[in-house]
Amino acid sequence: MKEVKVGIIGFGTVGAGVAENLLLNKEVIAKRTGVNVTLTRIADLDITTDRGIAVPEGILTTDASVAIKECDIIVELVGGTTIAKKFILDAINAGKCVVTANKALLALHGKEIFDAAEKKGVDVYYEASVAGGIPIIKALREGLVSNRINRICGIMNGTCNYIITRMEREGADFNSVLADAQKLGYAEANPSLDIDGFDTAHKTAILAALAYGEWFGLDPVSIEGIRDLALDDIRYADELGYRIKLLATIKNNDGNVQFSVAPTLVAKNTLLANISEVFNGVLVDGDTVGQTLFYGRGAGRAATASAVVADITDVAINLAGGTVRRIPAFREGKLYDKVLAADEITSRYYLRFEVQDCPGVIASITRLLADRDISISSMIQDEAKGKNGNVPLVILTHEAPAKALKSALAEVATLSINQSPVKVMRIEDL
Amino acid sequence: MKEVKVGIIGFGTVGAGVAENLLLNKEVIAKRTGVNVTLTRIADLDITTDRGIAVPEGILTTDASVAIKECDIIVELVGGTTIAKKFILDAINAGKCVVTANKALLALHGKEIFDAAEKKGVDVYYEASVAGGIPIIKALREGLVSNRINRICGIMNGTCNYIITRMEREGADFNSVLADAQKLGYAEANPSLDIDGFDTAHKTAILAALAYGEWFGLDPVSIEGIRDLALDDIRYADELGYRIKLLATIKNNDGNVQFSVAPTLVAKNTLLANISEVFNGVLVDGDTVGQTLFYGRGAGRAATASAVVADITDVAINLAGGTVRRIPAFREGKLYDKVLAADEITSRYYLRFEVQDCPGVIASITRLLADRDISISSMIQDEAKGKNGNVPLVILTHEAPAKALKSALAEVATLSINQSPVKVMRIEDL
Repeated sequence: MKEVKVGIIGFGTVGAGVAENLLLNKEVIAKRTGVNVTLTRIADLDITTDRGIAVPEGILTTDASVAIKECDIIVELVGGTTIAKKFILDAINAGKCVVTANKALLALHGKEIFDAAEKKGVDVYYEASVAGGIPIIKALREGLVSNRINRICGIMNGTCNYIITRMEREGADFNSVLADAQKLGYAEANPSLDIDGFDTAHKTAILAALAYGEWFGLDPVSIEGIRDLALDDIRYADELGYRIKLLATIKNNDGNVQFSVAPTLVAKNTLLANISEVFNGVLVDGDTVGQTLFYGRGAGRAATASAVVADITDVAINLAGGTVRRIPAFREGKLYDKVLAADEITSRYYLRFEVQDCPGVIASITRLLADRDISISSMIQDEAKGKNGNVPLVILTHEAPAKALKSALAEVATLSINQSPVKVMRIEDL
Repeated sequence: MKEVKVGIIGFGTVGAGVAENLLLNKEVIAKRTGVNVTLTRIADLDITTDRGIAVPEGILTTDASVAIKECDIIVELVGGTTIAKKFILDAINAGKCVVTANKALLALHGKEIFDAAEKKGVDVYYEASVAGGIPIIKALREGLVSNRINRICGIMNGTCNYIITRMEREGADFNSVLADAQKLGYAEANPSLDIDGFDTAHKTAILAALAYGEWFGLDPVSIEGIRDLALDDIRYADELGYRIKLLATIKNNDGNVQFSVAPTLVAKNTLLANISEVFNGVLVDGDTVGQTLFYGRGAGRAATASAVVADITDVAINLAGGTVRRIPAFREGKLYDKVLAADEITSRYYLRFEVQDCPGVIASITRLLADRDISISSMIQDEAKGKNGNVPLVILTHEAPAKALKSALAEVATLSINQSPVKVMRIEDL
């Protein structure tokens, strides 16, 4: 049986999970693939802290270049966009294949890395960069290859989904749940990457590229996190038959594509709305297959390791059989006409106004919407008074142009009855 | 760009869908893969009936051997286990790669076909044989390759799921929904293959083989369909927090594997319980990834075509790049100790008794269970009288050996208070 040598750079949580999986399930992989995938090197600046797994003697090194020199596949699990990029490019330039879980790096510098890999004729695999253990990259690149992608909607950040689930179930506000999530290890000390939507946006950029054949990067992704998510909005959404999710949306309407990350209402009776806690789910709507959905753990040591080791195995099969670059890291091939700017899209909207409790309020606001052909699908005016005796007015719209809505809300802002900035969220019908 | 020629044998519903997809999305596939996949031949005995798609002039033939001779990839969509097998073996023996959606053929004769393919060094791909458009075969063979499979639970027959969904929602009985499903085209005139569980069993045999590395065939799959599913059971299950699904279960407990297809109770708050109508869902529990779930359309022209064309594309990439048999059709590699017989398993159970309405009934029955260490998790005694004044008694058990249950029920059958065969279903905790 042919042997393929694997070197891991970065012995953190995921690195330890990958090492453990490679050691524990080596026989499984060999039986399924006929390749002997051998963990040969682990490089990290810290090689003394106990990671809770017994690695073979002598494989630890503080020198990443040793791993790159001695191994066939280099697994980059350092994270970040600086030294990780250097390690990957060093590996590629040394003619080694690369596996990475680094979504930020790929979202920002994917093209540079893939170009280098093409030049040197090596593989770069990145299944674990999106939705952890869920094989969604493989599904898009291979399993659904014959589909034009109409839409992808993904819950792809476990931290946010966990926070929203707890807000919903416990009626607790964002800050208290975040603090608790940090205590429990479900949120980082600096939670911005997750809760401000950037992590989801990195993943969105990767899926968008695979769907439409161009490495767009982060620029065209409109990003909004969950920091301002109010309990009131979760309650009104619930009353109207919806849940709020931090949703990545990748859409193609007649060739016009749009990419966004934002708290979004999805109907409670859909599968996506029922993906809770730290779990991830990605809905892919293809022109041939229709709606498919992929669900599982989007993060964590073991689940991420499952995806990393699947990539390692794919590359190991390639190396053993001489089929490297059978599927290139990324193949350009434009499958869209135009990327829409944020104010060019149309969507259904959730609008929460805070207004004075006086005659004519509903008439004034709905008139401003009607003047712009924005049609209302449902509405709640709550009897409960808010601060200063104001009342909330919640309106769900049918599909409307973002521009028309913006113009209506600008005029609402000038009305004396309007007491507070209008809360706007998108609704995604699934 | 390299060209790969595709020949379809069988121009029925799925054949027409595959032809349509290949013609419509040829450019998409070329952009994503760099291979020119060309529909070159369609063979069918009937080449005159209009299938609603415009195929290139001159590609239709009534002679399958012409397709086999002229094409690089032969797509078998004839169905059945006789002539389809001949076509596939003819193609393999002519050195051609094969794509098939034929679950029955693979379940029964997979080993023979794969052995022939190995001998001739050609590919045989079969994504569409299980769960239609959902790329579950690829997920098991590649995306989750590093996982030992603890369990697979699948809703894999759209007809059954459609019937059960309607029974549940409309309170209609099995026969009336089946008749309506036949009228609407959701069930065949001879529905046995679907409703008696055989179709699901074929798929179960394929997934079991991929999970545990041996082509088991149908023999070890215990099979029960939905023909006897009573509305009462759906109602009691609902009252107790469950839905009934025709569930394929593939399980490994400490090396002992078991395979079954049967109406099974799953908790209402699980994703699997919420997969309704014609949709399929497959839950895969791996030792590393944890629970994942794959959802989509399990049948139908377009969804099945999506999977068939994904396979065609995979093989076309192999042919264009000289990487045929990169992943063999099936690789033996035993990953279990023993296949359990039906009476060796343990499970949770749903039991519905029909008993006389008299003192001591519950005491007698629960005593017989307790004597065999079968523990009760919940119970309903319904006040409503059934026929002859008998009353239903519904009991859910904790995990219990099938043998102990069988013995208890044999003794229940001898009790004068027992008025009818006990209805037994498994409960699967997800």
